[in-house]
Amino acid sequence: MGTTGKRPILRDIAARVGVSETAASFALNGRPGISDETRRRVLEVVEEMGWRPSYAARVLSGARSRTIGMVLTRTAATADSDLFFMRLMTGMQSVLRRAQYGLLIQVAETPEEEVEVYRTWQAERRVDGVVLVDLRADDPRPRAVVDLDLPAVLAGGPDPDALVPSVSIDDTAAMTLVLDHVRELGHRRVAYVCGPQDLLHVQRRVEAFDEAVRHHRLQQGSVLGTDFTSRSAAAATRAVLDDPAPPTAIICDNEVLAVSVVATLRALGRSIPGDVAVISCEDTPVCTAMQPALTALHRDTPGFGADVAAHLLGRLDGEAPADSQEQTPELVVRGSTVPAPA
Amino acid sequence: MGTTGKRPILRDIAARVGVSETAASFALNGRPGISDETRRRVLEVVEEMGWRPSYAARVLSGARSRTIGMVLTRTAATADSDLFFMRLMTGMQSVLRRAQYGLLIQVAETPEEEVEVYRTWQAERRVDGVVLVDLRADDPRPRAVVDLDLPAVLAGGPDPDALVPSVSIDDTAAMTLVLDHVRELGHRRVAYVCGPQDLLHVQRRVEAFDEAVRHHRLQQGSVLGTDFTSRSAAAATRAVLDDPAPPTAIICDNEVLAVSVVATLRALGRSIPGDVAVISCEDTPVCTAMQPALTALHRDTPGFGADVAAHLLGRLDGEAPADSQEQTPELVVRGSTVPAPA
Repeated sequence: MGTTGKRPILRDIAARVGVSETAASFALNGRPGISDETRRRVLEVVEEMGWRPSYAARVLSGARSRTIGMVLTRTAATADSDLFFMRLMTGMQSVLRRAQYGLLIQVAETPEEEVEVYRTWQAERRVDGVVLVDLRADDPRPRAVVDLDLPAVLAGGPDPDALVPSVSIDDTAAMTLVLDHVRELGHRRVAYVCGPQDLLHVQRRVEAFDEAVRHHRLQQGSVLGTDFTSRSAAAATRAVLDDPAPPTAIICDNEVLAVSVVATLRALGRSIPGDVAVISCEDTPVCTAMQPALTALHRDTPGFGADVAAHLLGRLDGEAPADSQEQTPELVVRGSTVPAPA
Repeated sequence: MGTTGKRPILRDIAARVGVSETAASFALNGRPGISDETRRRVLEVVEEMGWRPSYAARVLSGARSRTIGMVLTRTAATADSDLFFMRLMTGMQSVLRRAQYGLLIQVAETPEEEVEVYRTWQAERRVDGVVLVDLRADDPRPRAVVDLDLPAVLAGGPDPDALVPSVSIDDTAAMTLVLDHVRELGHRRVAYVCGPQDLLHVQRRVEAFDEAVRHHRLQQGSVLGTDFTSRSAAAATRAVLDDPAPPTAIICDNEVLAVSVVATLRALGRSIPGDVAVISCEDTPVCTAMQPALTALHRDTPGFGADVAAHLLGRLDGEAPADSQEQTPELVVRGSTVPAPA
């Protein structure tokens, strides 16, 4: 392969061999009706000219696109401060790079728009498979990828309809870890500031929270929904502090929510961790930067991304679809959680 | 377009029209030698069958790939905690989405490996153009994309060899803002904890720092290189505090370095901002989460990404290559910078 941008094209190859462009193309794509001699000559000329069969030509002749697609449907406002996707992509890339696969990224605003992207990708054979993220209740995407015959893996599952295999994180075990810790410290009134409850992983966490509250016979277990913005977390915090018996521990779905909860508690004259303990369900540099540092669930998100990519590539290689589960996140205890006030 | 995965293929179309596959393909790709009647019939059948010309077929017939490529050469360790790329991509996507362009992402470990990716992408016509980031001294990439005839825009420039047009940030003006602020607060001994100095934008900032130190006749202007990891920032901080007259203000290239500098200063018994003022050259949620909150340069990185994507799409539409410059970042003054100790 030369380093100049002037690619020899089919026309040049055909002219050099002395055959029609159609014959040259048939020879290159391994289609019948071309003499072995012509095929040999075409390949020889291709070799001489340093040509590499065009990606498009390969895809047309039935080869794979060697591209994995991922659509992000989060809004720009939340994606902007969300390290999760960067970590997921970094992990996916570590596997895709070795397999010489590219990652095609697109942003959509709704699951319906995302389905349209899949439809176009499959119609145009732009990707060999896709990674689905952030499954919602009544999500049209699993059914759509099945109908489109587009291989898919769900990052964070399982799919309740079992249409798409998943690599999942045990949200129940993770939430149980958090509640066990809080309970051991003597907290009896605990609140959970969570993400939008149409997200299935948020639903699973809320169920696990409710279950653990019952199991530990805690007095209170308020669940406060947010849209993942700092503003909604601040509003949730103000609301829960209006309670005559406010919580002494607040669990937050991620560090963005936790930062806002801490700032709001302080603005309302509460000290952390003296009056209220705070826990983040995502561990990022923010958690250790704060004073006190935040107790957080530590996940190996790049490892998760690598597993998701490996799972999808395995499916493309003919492995049977199967759900798999990641290791339970670890709880890293830091200064933001201390025994409950007497 | 039906929702089932069974795409009608060229063979089916040809059979239905009663022509050869070659003729059907020629008709679809607008090539000569096909009667208007046949072309009309083929397009009619295509319409009836709900077929969408394959992406590969379109690219083969000379159409664009409608894909922009970006290779990230940062290591997984730093990309993981770096919000910059997530914000850049989010901004790029806002423009690409409207233009129905996809973004193909690949990770490479060296500029040379990155050049190989460009070579493959161009040979296979997988992308219409690329965005270059993190230009280094003696970087092989601008020359490579020119030689490959691959349209490119440099995000953060300018290119010293003027081979590739750029959308750049005025690093000199930004650093001047920071030094003016520090000087006004009476600091006379200032250190700069920067990234790897083979990165051109780091070099430009270091030059601007040295220039501002001279301009303000500050007593000291130590420049401490790091590899963008927390560990190297901690080592730099310990080194600078060994000085008999240590700095009273430390400027950090980003928030990851700033967090580590603050933690190290505290571990060594220094208070922030009482003993040492700290400034971050990137503003992220970490900066407001800390106590005290960090004074930081606030950049509109999504806006920067949008401008980069628009610039590249403009080039693809035949606009003349031209450098453009973003607005100077704003300095957001927070609790981490107070007047210098007497």
